[in-house]
Amino acid sequence: MGRHFREELEQLNSDLLKMDALAEEAVAKAVAALRDRDPVAARAVIDNDSRVDELELVIDERCLDLIARYQPMASDLRFITTGMRLNGELERIADIAVDIAERVIVMARDPFVKPLVDIPRLTAVAQKMVKMAIDAFIARDSEIAKQVLFLDPEADSLRDAIHKELVEEHMMKDPATAERAVQLLLIARFLERVCDHATYIAEDVIYMIKAEVVKHHPERL
Amino acid sequence: MGRHFREELEQLNSDLLKMDALAEEAVAKAVAALRDRDPVAARAVIDNDSRVDELELVIDERCLDLIARYQPMASDLRFITTGMRLNGELERIADIAVDIAERVIVMARDPFVKPLVDIPRLTAVAQKMVKMAIDAFIARDSEIAKQVLFLDPEADSLRDAIHKELVEEHMMKDPATAERAVQLLLIARFLERVCDHATYIAEDVIYMIKAEVVKHHPERL
Repeated sequence: MGRHFREELEQLNSDLLKMDALAEEAVAKAVAALRDRDPVAARAVIDNDSRVDELELVIDERCLDLIARYQPMASDLRFITTGMRLNGELERIADIAVDIAERVIVMARDPFVKPLVDIPRLTAVAQKMVKMAIDAFIARDSEIAKQVLFLDPEADSLRDAIHKELVEEHMMKDPATAERAVQLLLIARFLERVCDHATYIAEDVIYMIKAEVVKHHPERL
Repeated sequence: MGRHFREELEQLNSDLLKMDALAEEAVAKAVAALRDRDPVAARAVIDNDSRVDELELVIDERCLDLIARYQPMASDLRFITTGMRLNGELERIADIAVDIAERVIVMARDPFVKPLVDIPRLTAVAQKMVKMAIDAFIARDSEIAKQVLFLDPEADSLRDAIHKELVEEHMMKDPATAERAVQLLLIARFLERVCDHATYIAEDVIYMIKAEVVKHHPERL
């Protein structure tokens, strides 16, 4: 494969980084809107999602075009199709930011049932996982990808702790807060789903690298 | 493209139908386990998920292999990459069946807070949407795909009705049932996510057909 193909792969990398930046920004802004109970900021997250959807299509077309024009060999083909999957995962992460923003708009009128402590923690884990998963792809580094998988149980247990506290300390003891508690519980689940998408990306990266090694460098296994 | 390529595309179709059958079966069995409060049946859904994961990898490899060996022209390439996306969506649908089954195991000890009425309805909508979305892909029929999109608001409003009833009639009036009500509320959200995945499939099919028309038959637009 020649210089043009390599340049276009670089362009694909940089588009995926842009997609990643948009998705991470959407999550950060949705959680900030939650913290500030700011429906205007939440609405901005929702409105901005069309940019993410557009970029997803652009990247997808670029990948198809790369495959069709250059007919890349197996390892590059796998890199490109993994890029297509990442692109889809990042779009779903941005969609989850929209889900969070929609909850914020519903909740903005009322005070929180409890101070937000574990939700910012879960957000930090989610952001770290997404960032690392994308880094792993760009660097084609399965060790970084494996670290993402190790973080997922932490996200699950934060989500479960939030669930338990909201049900036992709030819904059961003060049923008038049930709706507000449910909204926070859903937001915790949304954030944990961001972690799931980071996990899917990491698994794709590990699979991409492993298939590569299995096919071309079995001695490295 | 020759006879062998067409035969392999047929094989891809039939593998995707098998994947679809496994995913639909998983959802049906998870909801049946819920109805019967049967933790053994729920466990079987969870255990069976490895078959779905394996088939996902087989299909994914088959797609990559088809692209690498035949270097298909644009329209076939798009059909194959859409098949890869469908494959991923079906795997996620089966994962949601696992999520439901996990809730069933948590809930199996306790009676329902309410008779299941809207959840079976939402299940029926979800199953119909998945089936139609796959039919649309196989038949390359954007009209069927559009009908899937029209069903999604029905799923959203069933989910919202279930949410409202569980919060207002159960959690608020009888706080001791909060945990059980939350579990049902989560199951309703899981089923609505199955509908979302069906919608993604339908959108992919519409996009696949439209790109085809735009590129090769603009007169049909």
